[in-house]
Amino acid sequence: MDLYGFSWSEMDELPPGIGQYDDFHTIDWQRDIARDRMRHRYIIKKRTEGIWDFVRGIHDAWSGWLCVLLVGVAAGAVAGVIDIGTQWMKDLKEGVCPQAFWLNQEQCCWSSNDTFNEGDHCAQWYTWAELFGHFRDDAWAFIISYILYVMWSLVFAGLAVLLVRTFAPYACGSGIPEIKTILSGFIIRGYLGKWTLVIKSIGMILAVSSGLSLGKEGPLVHVSCCIGNIFSYLFPKYGKNEAKKREILSAASAAGVSVAFGAPIGGVLFSLEEVSYYFPLKTLWRSFFCALVAAFILRSINPFGNDHLVMFYMEYSRNWIFVELIPFIILGILGGLIGTIFIKGNIMWCNYRKQSLLGKYPITEVLVISLITAIISFPNIYTRMNSSDLIKLLFSQCGVADISPLCDYNRNFTNVNSRIEIAEAGAGVHRSLGLLTLALIFKLCITIFTFGIKVPTGLFIPSLVMGAIMGRMIGIGMEQLAYHYPYLWVFQGACSTGENCLSPGLYAMVGAAACLGGVTRMTVSLVVIMFELTGSVKYIVPLMAAVMASKWVGDAFGRRGIYDAHINLNGYPYMDSKEEYIYTALAADIMTPRRNESPLCVITQETMTVDDIENILKSTDHNGFPVIVSQESQYLVGFVLRKDLTLALANAKKTQEGVVGESHILFTAHSSQSSLGPPAVKLRKILDMAPITITDQTPVETVIDMFCKLGLRQVLVIHNGRLLGIITKKDVLRHIKQLGNEDPESVLFN
Amino acid sequence: MDLYGFSWSEMDELPPGIGQYDDFHTIDWQRDIARDRMRHRYIIKKRTEGIWDFVRGIHDAWSGWLCVLLVGVAAGAVAGVIDIGTQWMKDLKEGVCPQAFWLNQEQCCWSSNDTFNEGDHCAQWYTWAELFGHFRDDAWAFIISYILYVMWSLVFAGLAVLLVRTFAPYACGSGIPEIKTILSGFIIRGYLGKWTLVIKSIGMILAVSSGLSLGKEGPLVHVSCCIGNIFSYLFPKYGKNEAKKREILSAASAAGVSVAFGAPIGGVLFSLEEVSYYFPLKTLWRSFFCALVAAFILRSINPFGNDHLVMFYMEYSRNWIFVELIPFIILGILGGLIGTIFIKGNIMWCNYRKQSLLGKYPITEVLVISLITAIISFPNIYTRMNSSDLIKLLFSQCGVADISPLCDYNRNFTNVNSRIEIAEAGAGVHRSLGLLTLALIFKLCITIFTFGIKVPTGLFIPSLVMGAIMGRMIGIGMEQLAYHYPYLWVFQGACSTGENCLSPGLYAMVGAAACLGGVTRMTVSLVVIMFELTGSVKYIVPLMAAVMASKWVGDAFGRRGIYDAHINLNGYPYMDSKEEYIYTALAADIMTPRRNESPLCVITQETMTVDDIENILKSTDHNGFPVIVSQESQYLVGFVLRKDLTLALANAKKTQEGVVGESHILFTAHSSQSSLGPPAVKLRKILDMAPITITDQTPVETVIDMFCKLGLRQVLVIHNGRLLGIITKKDVLRHIKQLGNEDPESVLFN
Repeated sequence: MDLYGFSWSEMDELPPGIGQYDDFHTIDWQRDIARDRMRHRYIIKKRTEGIWDFVRGIHDAWSGWLCVLLVGVAAGAVAGVIDIGTQWMKDLKEGVCPQAFWLNQEQCCWSSNDTFNEGDHCAQWYTWAELFGHFRDDAWAFIISYILYVMWSLVFAGLAVLLVRTFAPYACGSGIPEIKTILSGFIIRGYLGKWTLVIKSIGMILAVSSGLSLGKEGPLVHVSCCIGNIFSYLFPKYGKNEAKKREILSAASAAGVSVAFGAPIGGVLFSLEEVSYYFPLKTLWRSFFCALVAAFILRSINPFGNDHLVMFYMEYSRNWIFVELIPFIILGILGGLIGTIFIKGNIMWCNYRKQSLLGKYPITEVLVISLITAIISFPNIYTRMNSSDLIKLLFSQCGVADISPLCDYNRNFTNVNSRIEIAEAGAGVHRSLGLLTLALIFKLCITIFTFGIKVPTGLFIPSLVMGAIMGRMIGIGMEQLAYHYPYLWVFQGACSTGENCLSPGLYAMVGAAACLGGVTRMTVSLVVIMFELTGSVKYIVPLMAAVMASKWVGDAFGRRGIYDAHINLNGYPYMDSKEEYIYTALAADIMTPRRNESPLCVITQETMTVDDIENILKSTDHNGFPVIVSQESQYLVGFVLRKDLTLALANAKKTQEGVVGESHILFTAHSSQSSLGPPAVKLRKILDMAPITITDQTPVETVIDMFCKLGLRQVLVIHNGRLLGIITKKDVLRHIKQLGNEDPESVLFN
Repeated sequence: MDLYGFSWSEMDELPPGIGQYDDFHTIDWQRDIARDRMRHRYIIKKRTEGIWDFVRGIHDAWSGWLCVLLVGVAAGAVAGVIDIGTQWMKDLKEGVCPQAFWLNQEQCCWSSNDTFNEGDHCAQWYTWAELFGHFRDDAWAFIISYILYVMWSLVFAGLAVLLVRTFAPYACGSGIPEIKTILSGFIIRGYLGKWTLVIKSIGMILAVSSGLSLGKEGPLVHVSCCIGNIFSYLFPKYGKNEAKKREILSAASAAGVSVAFGAPIGGVLFSLEEVSYYFPLKTLWRSFFCALVAAFILRSINPFGNDHLVMFYMEYSRNWIFVELIPFIILGILGGLIGTIFIKGNIMWCNYRKQSLLGKYPITEVLVISLITAIISFPNIYTRMNSSDLIKLLFSQCGVADISPLCDYNRNFTNVNSRIEIAEAGAGVHRSLGLLTLALIFKLCITIFTFGIKVPTGLFIPSLVMGAIMGRMIGIGMEQLAYHYPYLWVFQGACSTGENCLSPGLYAMVGAAACLGGVTRMTVSLVVIMFELTGSVKYIVPLMAAVMASKWVGDAFGRRGIYDAHINLNGYPYMDSKEEYIYTALAADIMTPRRNESPLCVITQETMTVDDIENILKSTDHNGFPVIVSQESQYLVGFVLRKDLTLALANAKKTQEGVVGESHILFTAHSSQSSLGPPAVKLRKILDMAPITITDQTPVETVIDMFCKLGLRQVLVIHNGRLLGIITKKDVLRHIKQLGNEDPESVLFN
């Protein structure tokens, strides 16, 4: 029985280390799943043997559910802590609660039992300017606030980058590109470790509080996957099997989105559509459970202080009318364009950072970006305020008692219950439009430079902000159009009654979805997240239209979303099953060796000696070698991994007596040769006798399909039974790059 | 270049019929997808050649979206018509609108402008009893109504079964088991044809109106798939390629659920989780679009007459408390038990029907079932009323002005705005509990016999009814417990204020989900459908807990849901990728030929003559033959399909001169033999040079994985390059049955 066979107990006899992977290597799904089945069978067989084994069997059966339950609880709790921390730190930038510094503004005011208006602040809460002395002069107060704002930003951002640089270099960025790569079957040790978890959580709070143009939603997915990884080690079934571990990680990423947006269904779909690679249906159900538990725990912690499960609860008084689909689609197109500009700009800048000296001074870069952000954003009310609040403001409908400049319409309300009539925009709205335009340009530019710096950076919130600004502006335009020309036939009479027939807030929501769609190229999951985010079923059709337009426009300029673009930039071995390849090639064209190259490095099943093998191991760096019947016939027997071979040889030398350089290595059950000479080393156990093979005439598309669906590391190419060559994942990725006129050498890992 | 190569133009040279499938055969996904890629490349290449080719290219790129748009519109429209028709027919059972017989009761009363209370009927509408004379005696009126009710039931059911038997035998049943099989890559000609569509739609209206214990939700999925199939023929890209057509069918099934429940997201998840097999992500987005369009169209038609997108809009005044999870989980367990009883009972009955004389008298069976149903259900108010109305009633909360017996509590309302206090159940509630118990038993028994008769029968609504009755009863029990012991610590003080703290309606909803879950074993999609069905986000956690408990309990008694059980019963070749196999076997153990059997029937690449091949074709009925280098070496060259071989031989005889029985058949590019004798027939074009191969040591699990994920019909088994045998889908399915201690001969098709 070999390693790929069915005896679990024999596994224990194998030298340790066999079946594990090195850092930055691709895993072999088929092999890991086979190992898990073997383990599973062993446990089922044992279950009848005694009470302890029975308990072990039950524990094994439940461990998947228990693990995702723990992951969900932990993800919800961590998200709650991060939300509360962020709130407190943000308020710390503006002032302090001298009686109890650990309270944020809202809690401080609650504790004082004062009646206070929202937006205003209560007597218990002191702004820094107030604390340092009462400035009668407003200009002085402004300057002091400005300086303090910039200072706090620098302190927070500096702390964040220092923490990341010192303790956990993997804690920077959004993490989603790497998680996609890891889930597709790649090993990055430490990327989901406990230090990354701790530092990313703290760094996220600091980075968001510093006012940089970034969000905490993407990093929450990373944090959640760290939690998944850590808990998986409690259950050897998952912790010791990289393929099975990825089931937990899929569920964890769903929980991450679930807590980031309060959107459990959207989280599952995000995990399915965007992140996960290998997604059996059992995982779907577990992911849903995990996402729901996480959302439930977060809701019990209730960090937003409102009872709604949703982040931006919206209810528009009017339904949308059919003709509005046109501006919604225009929003989609604009969202696609913004997404494209952002992706191209960001990738160019990241490339520049990689190749220039800039990459050597990450701390300086963060401080400079943070300084620029703080200086520019303070004077503009819409960039100064926290991004989530801005989104909430832009999404909302102008109410009767609304006094914000965005709601400065020439209206006369006689009483609070009167209906909101459509009205001409006042000076406040006009000024707001100017400020919003500036804010949009600023946000777009600064986010291009921000995404990629060495602090935890999320993209969802900045994209939503850009889209919401754009949408609100177009929404106000449409509203004014309807006010000035209410009898236009396109409005189908909906606007002629004088009642407000269009909600600029709805446009902001649609614009936000369009922009996020343009940046990430998410589709179903985005629509579902937006729908869960705002709690409104009615607006699925507008959201869908905009997201669709945005995706098509974006795809016309480049098929890669920001995450795929970053995977590509970093040269990760990620094979996208979504892409289509239209060129023609056969397996024979992309295999190693190419025509006119030296033949493949192979091992014969019984004629090679220990010295021969060691020479091969020394002179090449392949990860595995095909085993053939003989050099003359080239008929394929199996495949052996470099790592297993090295370990088995070392083990044989140590434990088996009389093994010398001339000892033959046998991959067969019995030697057909004479038994003279030193004792042979039998290595049949480490031979994979069922390698996946294809013929040389197989189209490359089929090869890609097999790689994607079966999760292979390599396939062997045969012709009429004879071994011709080998195709590794790297070969396929290089071929894909070549077709895209890109540098095939940019595929870094195998 | 061969058929599996890359020249589209050469495809045209091949004799017609090559690449198509016979009825009741399995499709070859890899081959169909390769054909589509070939076609796609050809169009892209041609696109630059002229304006017409450019337009063709654009049309081709958009045709997928256009097709699902049309499918969505049509599915929505058909669902609307069916809803309206059902409403009218149901009312026809009770009475008629003499002034305008085409109006249903509600419309009739609208047209009269009378003020009328719901539940009551207006002056314009006559019940049959009223129409035939005014009966002063209530007993006579009751008897007349009873007789008419039974009569109409028999007429409707008889009409339905006659239509189905005469015009479209495939229109019976729910259709979901067959659609699952078809989507997994099986051909059943006519199953999704236009006659099935028309007859199933009409039959559905009749069957539902006849009062049989069935719903129209499952059949709507079938109807929707028929629409998808019909529209796919407008686009050769889909109509002529069975693999691509299944992308449209996946989207259509999502649209079916979407219109059945007004649940677009649930529909997509249903398609993903339950129905679809091959679900690339592009399909996810298109399915969502299709489902949304269908829901949008249906909503514009507005057959329910309310503005809500949802069928049973619910809003409970109180949130659920944590301790209620216990009864919810109990509901889940009961739901799982009911599901198990139903599945076992139904399968036993269907087996009996198949083997006994009963199967020969389908019309009689329908009439008898219909008679029994009508006679028993009329006296009980809860079985007499239409199932959807019953569900709505059971789901709802007792309001202030509610006069139904279910809401007969000992309450005193001082005014309509007073809060609803918890109260002791009155006589009406007690009587209702008795009637509901009878209704539950009756529904369970009759549905076991009903599901499988030769009219369109859906399961969703009957399952929901059973679950809702069970839930409501337990809900009332809990409510009375809380009333009598409000200070029990488990209620956490929520019930001690005197306000109503538990909603029996919520229990009904949770019970309905649990029961449907027990019957169908759906998970995520069920929770999402329930959530969209009732429009309440708050109750996801209770729903999830109940569905989870129900699935676990159900799985403990048998892993197959009702649809899988019916697939199994009918012997369809459906390979469930969800099942796990714990036994050990190697490819060598399940391949044909087994050990000690006669060797495999193979074709050599250049030594066989036309006569040899024709003899092989005559003497065997295999669907394809491996091609090898020579009988001595057995090295594999490729695979050729029986159908292609037959066609190509006939074609060669017709078009090529001098072909006689002794002509050699060449599968090589050039003959290595002498060119004496009659001219050789070159058949390299029809040879698949890239068959999927595995070694004999491959575990069966890996083989199953490959079959499921790559959509194969067969794999060839080789050992050290030599052909050993072949494994077809049927071989795998037989092996699986054998493991499950079932009769392997029950796998009927290949």
